[in-house]
Amino acid sequence: MNKQAELDSLLQQVAVSGENLTGTDRRGFLRKGLTFLGAASATAAAAHMPSVKAAFPPEEPAYGKTLGKPVLFAPYGSPSKYESHVQRRTVEWLTPDRISSISFTPLADLKGIITPSGVMFERYHAGLPDIKPQEHHLMIHGMVERPIILSMDDLMRFPSVSKIHFVECPANGGMEWRGAQMNRLQFSHGMIGCAEWTGVLLSTLLEEVGVKPEGKWVLAEGADGSHMSRSIPLEKALDDTLVVYAQNGEMLRPEQGYPVRLVNPGWEGNTSIKWLRRLEIGDQPWYHREETSKYTDLMPDGRSREFTFVQECNSVVTNPCPEKPMMKPGKVWVEGLAWSGRGKIKHVDVSFDGGVTWREAKFTSEVFPRALTRFGLEWDWQGQPAMIQSRAIDDTGFVQPTYGQLRAARGENSIYHKNAIHTWKVNADGSVVNVQIS
Amino acid sequence: MNKQAELDSLLQQVAVSGENLTGTDRRGFLRKGLTFLGAASATAAAAHMPSVKAAFPPEEPAYGKTLGKPVLFAPYGSPSKYESHVQRRTVEWLTPDRISSISFTPLADLKGIITPSGVMFERYHAGLPDIKPQEHHLMIHGMVERPIILSMDDLMRFPSVSKIHFVECPANGGMEWRGAQMNRLQFSHGMIGCAEWTGVLLSTLLEEVGVKPEGKWVLAEGADGSHMSRSIPLEKALDDTLVVYAQNGEMLRPEQGYPVRLVNPGWEGNTSIKWLRRLEIGDQPWYHREETSKYTDLMPDGRSREFTFVQECNSVVTNPCPEKPMMKPGKVWVEGLAWSGRGKIKHVDVSFDGGVTWREAKFTSEVFPRALTRFGLEWDWQGQPAMIQSRAIDDTGFVQPTYGQLRAARGENSIYHKNAIHTWKVNADGSVVNVQIS
Repeated sequence: MNKQAELDSLLQQVAVSGENLTGTDRRGFLRKGLTFLGAASATAAAAHMPSVKAAFPPEEPAYGKTLGKPVLFAPYGSPSKYESHVQRRTVEWLTPDRISSISFTPLADLKGIITPSGVMFERYHAGLPDIKPQEHHLMIHGMVERPIILSMDDLMRFPSVSKIHFVECPANGGMEWRGAQMNRLQFSHGMIGCAEWTGVLLSTLLEEVGVKPEGKWVLAEGADGSHMSRSIPLEKALDDTLVVYAQNGEMLRPEQGYPVRLVNPGWEGNTSIKWLRRLEIGDQPWYHREETSKYTDLMPDGRSREFTFVQECNSVVTNPCPEKPMMKPGKVWVEGLAWSGRGKIKHVDVSFDGGVTWREAKFTSEVFPRALTRFGLEWDWQGQPAMIQSRAIDDTGFVQPTYGQLRAARGENSIYHKNAIHTWKVNADGSVVNVQIS
Repeated sequence: MNKQAELDSLLQQVAVSGENLTGTDRRGFLRKGLTFLGAASATAAAAHMPSVKAAFPPEEPAYGKTLGKPVLFAPYGSPSKYESHVQRRTVEWLTPDRISSISFTPLADLKGIITPSGVMFERYHAGLPDIKPQEHHLMIHGMVERPIILSMDDLMRFPSVSKIHFVECPANGGMEWRGAQMNRLQFSHGMIGCAEWTGVLLSTLLEEVGVKPEGKWVLAEGADGSHMSRSIPLEKALDDTLVVYAQNGEMLRPEQGYPVRLVNPGWEGNTSIKWLRRLEIGDQPWYHREETSKYTDLMPDGRSREFTFVQECNSVVTNPCPEKPMMKPGKVWVEGLAWSGRGKIKHVDVSFDGGVTWREAKFTSEVFPRALTRFGLEWDWQGQPAMIQSRAIDDTGFVQPTYGQLRAARGENSIYHKNAIHTWKVNADGSVVNVQIS
């Protein structure tokens, strides 16, 4: 209750400060805020002073005086035992079963924009199949001149490309439609990962089989027990859809679709069919289960949105977050991730007062279309409560909406495509909680 | 002997065809070659026809009719069991001991430009230390205004950046100075890896401590038993040197310097000190063991090259290679990696006749400065013997030299910085062997 009172008080302050500030006024306010913050950060240079100053020079630890372990023949390196807390899933209660289920990327512990394959979220509709690559084939048929069945060896003889893109489940953050619920970044935003994907452009394979003039859609079907199937417009298939066999330099891991999957850059993850076994060309969409009763959103007027392919512009602050509270006063590097299924991230602003004033963040990673983009900015925290938000804009000009704007457009029945501006409340004790500001 | 005769014959053909072709003549020859090859590839469209055509549609395998494994709480994903041959090191005989030793990136099995952290080459000078991050500190001292000792938590409060760069041991391919020796891509070129590195720019930390005017060099020292130490000019330290704690999105793995290392982009790997514990600012280099008796090259006149920091422009074809022979006639995607410590790769040519004619390769990955760059081109192989080479040019105009040019400049006593144009000989039976053309 005390926390609620504190939150209410903060929310009220936000409301009062934000009142009547729109357009130019708001921008003027923003500039004043920036000037103030700039001055503050210039005078606080000493805040980086480290916590350890006494033992100078540092004592020589035992491992500095002895030989370590030899080069291992045990062939495959793993993270340090001191990082064993970085896991995809640790709780039972998230989904009723674990066959049609999900695990989550532990975003709070990750850096940069490449998601390590070992902790990238996984989503199964019928569990994880065990596929021997020598026995796997990909059939391409339907409205084509020359239907084919390709072995993996055949597939790897075609020209390959490597592209860095995110893959995101459209249900990412879906529980938040009903208010702030998941007090952990891993669960509120962790159904996303970004990797370097290597494979063959689907357009290359379609050229090989020759799409007939009446062919307008592609059905992609998985080889697992669910035979997960999605209809993809030919326009996308000929643009940037990839038939992928490698992720982050090595062959796909089993849970990511080994030995071959689709990646539809920027589109909802379920269209990037894993364990791909079949591509059929047709003249209309198939309206399979996973694009009718599932992966559609119920609008306030009772109708459903269909084929909501694009993962719209979105962002989240990853430090601080509930898993990474503020440790001590002083300057700290606030950072996060932004992404858009429409193109490149062009601009990210961060607010520390729940959206009243904004500061521009820097990009600290490479910036690619349809990829995670890392942003950051320095913040001098002296123990004051705060409401941290990030707001991304992509190169089409799309601005990440507030919860109010999103709900005004889509109602509250949705599960998918929640891309509203997210708020972390920082308490005076440094703890961080998930709250919502509409 | 038969193989040798075949090779000699091929080498002779190459010499005859190449005779008197220099400058413009050579370019004219190249153009004719390209035209011919272009025509050939246009008429050979059917060569992609797959090996499996009979079972159409394919039979439904067992895993398509059942449920697979559930989402795993076992937290960290691994490559498929069918990829267990992709290892860093499998033989004893490469180095006399395994403490001051090395393992090799299995380049033949990798795709794209990101090297999976689990198979990136590792080099130890005193074995692998076991460092608990909570007890590790980084001292910055010497000719500075405000010496400090940083804990890992302190370090992670500074502004961070994420950059994609290669790290290469200057001994990569060192045995090849004495002729073609390592009949395996992993051993001839595998002391290199490329990753997204996240950390703090050293310039940021040097600004924090305040380098005194007389400070011109930085000594970096490792915490392991060898206390590997290298002198780095301040100019580089203020340019792009990174104090790195994460690789490919997650905290460094133990063998890559956990919890903190240096990365000097484009420079010989031993300067990118792992398990970093100390940075000292001085007015001249320290001339430590690893920059005098080691990591220097003996020139023909008896003098040694010192501070040969930059890894010059280099490239290699990764498919085909000794580990990846030609499987059957037809079109195949020939690909490889190029890199330069001076900047971006600007151009890669590939020859199939030992350097007589060249075709321009396409870049099939992102192209970053001081990063691996993936190139490829289609080749119609009809069983003819061939001599495959790649030749990279970086954006400073540096052209990868022939063995003849490299030896003319450096003699034959060197171990380090071997970046000559490499040749794979393709035999009529599809096998691929390492040969040298000067």
